Amino acid sequence: MAEGKSPQQVASIASEILQGSDRLLVTRASPEAFSAVREVVPDASYRETARAIVADRRASRRAIPGVMVACAGTADLPAASEAVVTAELMDCEVERAFDVGVAGIHRLFDSMPAIRRARVIVVVAGMEGALPSVVGGLVDVPVIAVPTSVGYGAGFQGLAALLAMLNSCAPGVGVVNIDNGFGAGYLAAMINRAASAGTARPGRGLDAEP
Amino acid sequence: MAEGKSPQQVASIASEILQGSDRLLVTRASPEAFSAVREVVPDASYRETARAIVADRRASRRAIPGVMVACAGTADLPAASEAVVTAELMDCEVERAFDVGVAGIHRLFDSMPAIRRARVIVVVAGMEGALPSVVGGLVDVPVIAVPTSVGYGAGFQGLAALLAMLNSCAPGVGVVNIDNGFGAGYLAAMINRAASAGTARPGRGLDAEP
Amino acid sequence: MAEGKSPQQVASIASEILQGSDRLLVTRASPEAFSAVREVVPDASYRETARAIVADRRASRRAIPGVMVACAGTADLPAASEAVVTAELMDCEVERAFDVGVAGIHRLFDSMPAIRRARVIVVVAGMEGALPSVVGGLVDVPVIAVPTSVGYGAGFQGLAALLAMLNSCAPGVGVVNIDNGFGAGYLAAMINRAASAGTARPGRGLDAEP
Amino acid sequence: MAEGKSPQQVASIASEILQGSDRLLVTRASPEAFSAVREVVPDASYRETARAIVADRRASRRAIPGVMVACAGTADLPAASEAVVTAELMDCEVERAFDVGVAGIHRLFDSMPAIRRARVIVVVAGMEGALPSVVGGLVDVPVIAVPTSVGYGAGFQGLAALLAMLNSCAPGVGVVNIDNGFGAGYLAAMINRAASAGTARPGRGLDAEP
Amino acid sequence: MAEGKSPQQVASIASEILQGSDRLLVTRASPEAFSAVREVVPDASYRETARAIVADRRASRRAIPGVMVACAGTADLPAASEAVVTAELMDCEVERAFDVGVAGIHRLFDSMPAIRRARVIVVVAGMEGALPSVVGGLVDVPVIAVPTSVGYGAGFQGLAALLAMLNSCAPGVGVVNIDNGFGAGYLAAMINRAASAGTARPGRGLDAEP
Amino acid sequence: MAEGKSPQQVASIASEILQGSDRLLVTRASPEAFSAVREVVPDASYRETARAIVADRRASRRAIPGVMVACAGTADLPAASEAVVTAELMDCEVERAFDVGVAGIHRLFDSMPAIRRARVIVVVAGMEGALPSVVGGLVDVPVIAVPTSVGYGAGFQGLAALLAMLNSCAPGVGVVNIDNGFGAGYLAAMINRAASAGTARPGRGLDAEP
Amino acid sequence: MAEGKSPQQVASIASEILQGSDRLLVTRASPEAFSAVREVVPDASYRETARAIVADRRASRRAIPGVMVACAGTADLPAASEAVVTAELMDCEVERAFDVGVAGIHRLFDSMPAIRRARVIVVVAGMEGALPSVVGGLVDVPVIAVPTSVGYGAGFQGLAALLAMLNSCAPGVGVVNIDNGFGAGYLAAMINRAASAGTARPGRGLDAEP
Amino acid sequence: MAEGKSPQQVASIASEILQGSDRLLVTRASPEAFSAVREVVPDASYRETARAIVADRRASRRAIPGVMVACAGTADLPAASEAVVTAELMDCEVERAFDVGVAGIHRLFDSMPAIRRARVIVVVAGMEGALPSVVGGLVDVPVIAVPTSVGYGAGFQGLAALLAMLNSCAPGVGVVNIDNGFGAGYLAAMINRAASAGTARPGRGLDAEP
Repeated sequence: MAEGKSPQQVASIASEILQGSDRLLVTRASPEAFSAVREVVPDASYRETARAIVADRRASRRAIPGVMVACAGTADLPAASEAVVTAELMDCEVERAFDVGVAGIHRLFDSMPAIRRARVIVVVAGMEGALPSVVGGLVDVPVIAVPTSVGYGAGFQGLAALLAMLNSCAPGVGVVNIDNGFGAGYLAAMINRAASAGTARPGRGLDAEP
Repeated sequence: MAEGKSPQQVASIASEILQGSDRLLVTRASPEAFSAVREVVPDASYRETARAIVADRRASRRAIPGVMVACAGTADLPAASEAVVTAELMDCEVERAFDVGVAGIHRLFDSMPAIRRARVIVVVAGMEGALPSVVGGLVDVPVIAVPTSVGYGAGFQGLAALLAMLNSCAPGVGVVNIDNGFGAGYLAAMINRAASAGTARPGRGLDAEP
Repeated sequence: MAEGKSPQQVASIASEILQGSDRLLVTRASPEAFSAVREVVPDASYRETARAIVADRRASRRAIPGVMVACAGTADLPAASEAVVTAELMDCEVERAFDVGVAGIHRLFDSMPAIRRARVIVVVAGMEGALPSVVGGLVDVPVIAVPTSVGYGAGFQGLAALLAMLNSCAPGVGVVNIDNGFGAGYLAAMINRAASAGTARPGRGLDAEP
Repeated sequence: MAEGKSPQQVASIASEILQGSDRLLVTRASPEAFSAVREVVPDASYRETARAIVADRRASRRAIPGVMVACAGTADLPAASEAVVTAELMDCEVERAFDVGVAGIHRLFDSMPAIRRARVIVVVAGMEGALPSVVGGLVDVPVIAVPTSVGYGAGFQGLAALLAMLNSCAPGVGVVNIDNGFGAGYLAAMINRAASAGTARPGRGLDAEP
Repeated sequence: MAEGKSPQQVASIASEILQGSDRLLVTRASPEAFSAVREVVPDASYRETARAIVADRRASRRAIPGVMVACAGTADLPAASEAVVTAELMDCEVERAFDVGVAGIHRLFDSMPAIRRARVIVVVAGMEGALPSVVGGLVDVPVIAVPTSVGYGAGFQGLAALLAMLNSCAPGVGVVNIDNGFGAGYLAAMINRAASAGTARPGRGLDAEP
Repeated sequence: MAEGKSPQQVASIASEILQGSDRLLVTRASPEAFSAVREVVPDASYRETARAIVADRRASRRAIPGVMVACAGTADLPAASEAVVTAELMDCEVERAFDVGVAGIHRLFDSMPAIRRARVIVVVAGMEGALPSVVGGLVDVPVIAVPTSVGYGAGFQGLAALLAMLNSCAPGVGVVNIDNGFGAGYLAAMINRAASAGTARPGRGLDAEP
Repeated sequence: MAEGKSPQQVASIASEILQGSDRLLVTRASPEAFSAVREVVPDASYRETARAIVADRRASRRAIPGVMVACAGTADLPAASEAVVTAELMDCEVERAFDVGVAGIHRLFDSMPAIRRARVIVVVAGMEGALPSVVGGLVDVPVIAVPTSVGYGAGFQGLAALLAMLNSCAPGVGVVNIDNGFGAGYLAAMINRAASAGTARPGRGLDAEP
Repeated sequence: MAEGKSPQQVASIASEILQGSDRLLVTRASPEAFSAVREVVPDASYRETARAIVADRRASRRAIPGVMVACAGTADLPAASEAVVTAELMDCEVERAFDVGVAGIHRLFDSMPAIRRARVIVVVAGMEGALPSVVGGLVDVPVIAVPTSVGYGAGFQGLAALLAMLNSCAPGVGVVNIDNGFGAGYLAAMINRAASAGTARPGRGLDAEP
């Protein structure tokens, strides 16, 4: 996470990470932080919507299908994209359903075939945060819920959505911090890789976040 | 509201109300309060689920169709029933859909024909409070949302549901206090009578609550 | 709602909406968002006080009387104006009483004749949020209460007013989110149209908000 | 204040106070505490509504007119009565207006002649706590506002009323703790005695509260 | 209060006020607001520390002694100065003790002679907000407590000080909103004028705040 | 969940569930609720520590290894046991580490061999809720964190632990509601079954909770 | 801490502790817990005010002077006594000043000679929690501040005092949890023993709390 | 503390302090404040990471070993550095362990030899604030815990870390305000000096903070 660190500090940590890892992911990064990183990591790229700096030096890449990331609309895209980037860096192929708010539930139903294919679903929602409950009631796979700070007034910067998700009446829902697309993508990738492998232990995590 | 008053105080106020009105409604009433009221209002009855004391001395009763009260399940029944009792005392016929939680959304769809008949819908929900958003997205009539204190932990006695409802991404939703079935039934009846009459002014409210 | 979206995103959504609708309403819009919208919607106009972008391509317009919007003073004008714009776009004629704070209650009484004419009243207030209770005690029609973030310190950006309105001792009050003039205007228009028509169903809502 | 102390502790402190004072006031006292006090202070009496233990051994008593205590209804009586008892023990004559809620504002106006006579007004209110703002806008004397824990749900045990009073748009309002009738009566008596005397310093306070 | 209003709106209201009053006070005013006001009220002046715009056209001015304003230090000066300006405009002479924090209690004791002369004391404090309790325990006159937003972290923009003051174990303390020097100065002046006059009713308040 | 329902309501729902399922789980159940259930479900048993009513009529039972439930001590046992019961009913074998608080971290290390065997770990903690962060930093498998209401004062009934877990600096942590052992056990079992099967879709959930 | 554990669980843990330690301390213990403990630890005693179960089997006891415990009054005695018991079990002699509230600051000054003798001071206070700031300003030794849940309304069960203490304008103040006399006594004893020894490391803590 | 004061006010106070002291410490200082201070205190220096202005005119300096300051990473450096600067100005030598987060607990163990040498440990942590509990469980010396505002979303600007630290299950932990490195360094130095001297009273504090 780049917040709370100067661009120089971010660049220095990024450089250090890539000495021990073949991947780099810096979340919540400003364009200024990216400029500083690119000085020392020329192959780094900036995912603007996700506000993420990425470098990927893997010799071969896997893309294990099974992760779905769903959200309600435009304003939730930063967190949803952060989850996508994270899971992709962790060897997963990610399907997207980015326009499925509860107030237009027919759009959610249009996406049900894709949703039903997933082994784990990341659901990103601000405002009243109802989407994970609805999705969780429709599927039998783990749902990782990401409240976002989208909204105003009594949304209290994501608190309303967070509380809603923690109180989901659908079981099988795990919640991460407000706007924490990284944490959700990471957890989803862990689950997907384990489900894919059918082995006792999923592979290593992503040792790549300053 | 009987809470915060002694049974004797409730009985005394109830008696006074019936001197100027043909109806009595006392909400949040304990059995003890009812016993005291029955001493002075022998025709009073006690709606146990709604925790309401009712007396109805109207010469003729109307039952204007158009009000629907929906809730998710057993634990929401007290607030939902309070809304029903209130709207009925205010000349409305009330349809019920009492098993339509968002985590089992097919049950909600089974109730859609009745829901679509309504001119105003009271939606009662605890936990994550997502039901009003889903219903609001499916209909074009006013939705009165009642958060309930059902839940535990991060539900904070209804706060989670309240915040969710205030942040509903469906427009056309008005919210009342936690567990305030009375307020919702009252407002719904006002709206229904106006819509029924097609006159500039709905009839008088219910001058009957201590 | 334009907040949380880039001007380009707003413009793109606005353009899309007008392909399926004859009206456009974008709330919480900055002048920058308006500039971007005007590029693609040349007939759009900007209501500065309401911070709203509006386009209205209806062949004929109705103006059903019955909606009153009341607020206490200058600082509440943005939310109050947002409610007015919304209800007007939904075929309602809106009366205004924009100087009726509880601390100068005689001004409220001066407006009572107009207030009594209304079929539904939107009451906008910040600070202690007392106005809906006072108005609700004086009329027999639905009151839609809009807390505003006006105030400072223990007003907590509108929380004080929100809580006050949820605890109104006058029945018949429905509350929307802090500063949510759009939601209040929408709900009021729904109620007014139903009351005007005297039919079982009010007309369609406003399918016009990104 | 008797809360948080055992009856024996209360009795012991009460006895000690009366060795140095001619008056005793114990607030928030249970009947058990009163029984213990009466053992050692036989002339103590118990004000049930105010939950206060009182002993008054003054040789001569004054009753300076000028204090008004107003509240909305039955459930606010404990705090209002506590204010009355306190001010009376501090040499003030207290007028009462105990049925003047904002949702029935005509009753407040019926009490205006008495209210206008007061030099200082204690206003007690739960729920939305709007009464001090309305009263403060009608008079030119200090208003001492007492929020009460009357209400439920989003009243949060008096928090809603407290915040409303702190944000009163009428100037000249000082606020005390939730349910703190004692503090309000004490402050009102201080002000009334000073206003009555027209001297630079009001008399001594009430050295009588354990 | 100028916050939430444009400079033009402030100037327009200021101009209007001075048509019916001989004094103007605008609190929480920016230099920009002052520039706009001075265009239409050439005799207005700006009190920088208090962030207040003042115009005073009284033919003769009174300065009734009896008000003391105390605070702990530099960062509390804006609220304290606002209280001073307000009380002075309301015909009071104000003594100051601006360096009397509880952590250096000897400085408070150095000011005791002046404090004891006062008929009413405004105590301004941020951080832990302890000063009103200490002062209230030392005097027998009304204390008006003003919490300030001075501090950081768990001060929560003045909430810590506000709660401390509401829970003061010294009786005779009335509290106003965070940073509300205006409200405290107004209430103190009301009390001081009444105490000075020894009449049943203090004079009129200050009809001068937009 | 039995809370908020009468014993009779619980019994009636339990009976209904077992008509469509071979398993029953009722959480947060009082002994009274169990008595009522046993009347209609004679083979039900009561897990006292977990406060859970269980009936298990499966013809054959599986016990897929891979779930670990860890907690810090005695007071966390109810939530931890609820997680164990739930996962066992969902075909999982559950290892326990019930004495591994962060303040005695050597005990955690003693359990590391068992913890490293797990495919998913439920970590239950009250007080400061630090255990999931420490465990999450030691393993590469999903951690499901359950805050408990254990503690007092500034623990705020589990809020402190909940916030700590949501802010875990270890990635791969999903959080459920305070004391929600059921939700954690359910989610862990979902993940474990998927990881065990290595198929695209985990089996059906537990359709057994009223 | 006995809360959240059954008497049998407490007794079992107590018994186990005494197998590895010569001292036992169980805080927040009910009389029922004590009865159960006395069954298995016959030499245990119950400190009623502190609600603590104690057993002390040390062959020789030290009593290092240097710890002072100060509080404002009767209702703070449980937490203050818990601090005293804890520090005494940890080889410290404890002076007490149990009647030194800020609203009667002369009593605090009467205790100053004893306070000045201390090497570390535990200050216990509820309500506005101002005492640690005042004491901290008068001495040059560490102050351990214990907020208590004494108070009502906006004291929010000790939150007001807690926030005040965290914002103390006197440096050298460390804060523990609400009502946590144990933690304060433990920390004070650690400091006192180190200061007494003048060695680099204080002795071992108290391995004695279930 | 420079926040809430103008650069000129800071400079003026700084100048005044150095007339009575040989050391100056100004925390939370902007570069602008430093520029103003350097005008009047030419020997002042600015510690950028700690955001502190320092002047040290002591004739001879001591550096008593015994204080350790530990934190988890880059974003906690400002508060940690503030603690270091403060303790150094108070005659202490400070060891640092600035990379010891709980999610990589092996790094903490690498630092254990240094940690075990300390007589008092300042532990700085944001996010979930778990580090003080883990450290407190490993040592027998006082731990001063500093929550930081590092994090986002449900970290609530340090509230999560603050609550976690107040609920630490390790005894011997005292907590200071969010980001209050100064307070922690001050308290740690007090303790260290006393432990070093082995006398009854630590030396004077640092009379150097505006």
